[in-house]
Amino acid sequence: MRIDILSLFPNMFQATMGESIIGKAQDNGFVDINVTDFRQYTTDKHNHVDDAPFGGGAGMLLQAQPIFDAMDAIQQQTEGQYSKGRVILMDPAGRKFDQAYAKELAQEDHLTFICGHYEGYDERIRQLVTDEASLGDYVLTGGELAAMVMIDATVRFVPGVLGNMSSPMGDSFSNGLLEYPQYTRPADFRGMKVPEVLTSGNHQKIKEWRMRESLRRTLHRRPDLLKTAKLSREQQLMLEDIKLDEDPTVPD
Amino acid sequence: MRIDILSLFPNMFQATMGESIIGKAQDNGFVDINVTDFRQYTTDKHNHVDDAPFGGGAGMLLQAQPIFDAMDAIQQQTEGQYSKGRVILMDPAGRKFDQAYAKELAQEDHLTFICGHYEGYDERIRQLVTDEASLGDYVLTGGELAAMVMIDATVRFVPGVLGNMSSPMGDSFSNGLLEYPQYTRPADFRGMKVPEVLTSGNHQKIKEWRMRESLRRTLHRRPDLLKTAKLSREQQLMLEDIKLDEDPTVPD
Repeated sequence: MRIDILSLFPNMFQATMGESIIGKAQDNGFVDINVTDFRQYTTDKHNHVDDAPFGGGAGMLLQAQPIFDAMDAIQQQTEGQYSKGRVILMDPAGRKFDQAYAKELAQEDHLTFICGHYEGYDERIRQLVTDEASLGDYVLTGGELAAMVMIDATVRFVPGVLGNMSSPMGDSFSNGLLEYPQYTRPADFRGMKVPEVLTSGNHQKIKEWRMRESLRRTLHRRPDLLKTAKLSREQQLMLEDIKLDEDPTVPD
Repeated sequence: MRIDILSLFPNMFQATMGESIIGKAQDNGFVDINVTDFRQYTTDKHNHVDDAPFGGGAGMLLQAQPIFDAMDAIQQQTEGQYSKGRVILMDPAGRKFDQAYAKELAQEDHLTFICGHYEGYDERIRQLVTDEASLGDYVLTGGELAAMVMIDATVRFVPGVLGNMSSPMGDSFSNGLLEYPQYTRPADFRGMKVPEVLTSGNHQKIKEWRMRESLRRTLHRRPDLLKTAKLSREQQLMLEDIKLDEDPTVPD
């Protein structure tokens, strides 16, 4: 997969995308991440990429020209080797990013992220994009962090990237439930002890405990997930048992 | 405001938090961001900070000891100067991060972010935290990017940080509506023209057009926001007018 990023702050990506799993995915050739500083495409003699809004108002807007020209250059570089793929702009009115969206993007061979900055951008830039995406209902100082988040969540689903690590299917959300509590050594840390069942060696009991705690945590903290999770017959009975267990009006 | 970050990848923060508005906020003394590599607090002779889960299963978990000891050290460094403040862990079951949450965090004098990595973390680490937060329903390879996003969105609300830039109140969401389309030079770019009203010089008409487009965009793309936005009498009439305008069953 090729990933292009248009940004005025290319340094932000080097450290972040070079570490950990994304860094390894690049080293192993699963993804090829290219950052283009679109300031180099400006035709403005002072190298400005922004200008005041028509109609007045505070703040500066990103101009269309440097972005369009940078996109043309990427198109020329990648033609024949990659499809145009998806071109993503961060927008608060965009499609909410989630795990399903990440899986969908992981199917593409080419993703391009346009990172806005300043107060906003010229409306005509939207003509270039296939996707307007939103991380959530909050405002960031630029599109860079949002692009990094989307790339990180997406690249995990590119086949081969996670290698021997537990597959993304084991994560919260992928099976529709929150994860059960986990513990590692020492068994007693500052007086806080690991639940006994986990050190019992009884694999059937451990499996049951984990399923029960996963259901319990989901019930308490994200009951909305239970509506869409595909629970087995065993899980449904366990969930009923948890509810009855916690209902003070039910006699023992 | 003091911000502490516990992370195994301190380099990720240097480039990202050093640029743009967050960088300026640090230079101007509004925020003091400190990254602690908690690997330096491990008592393991091989410098490991993770271990296998009790009860079996794939993947490694962050151990409690290095995190607890790093937190103790931060507490000693900041005692008397800063409150313990809020300690934030990223968790898919956590409180959904949004603009209101960012404003709330901006009131604190001390925030600490614990960035998990690997497959998960020892459940006892939750004892240290005041907030479990979630950016959205997707899984990231580590807590670093999520912490950066929260810090970026939060620091914008620290008084003085945005300086002469348009205040966060002008952004989408802060006034409860999506922003109107904006345009900057040139007026005609590759045949795409700026709406005439914006170059008319008629400020009253420009104001009305912007209000109308802001309402129209919100109606089309995030109608849920209209339920909670506090619309003036003028705005409510304008919204009705847009709806009638777009209803093909209403005669002219």
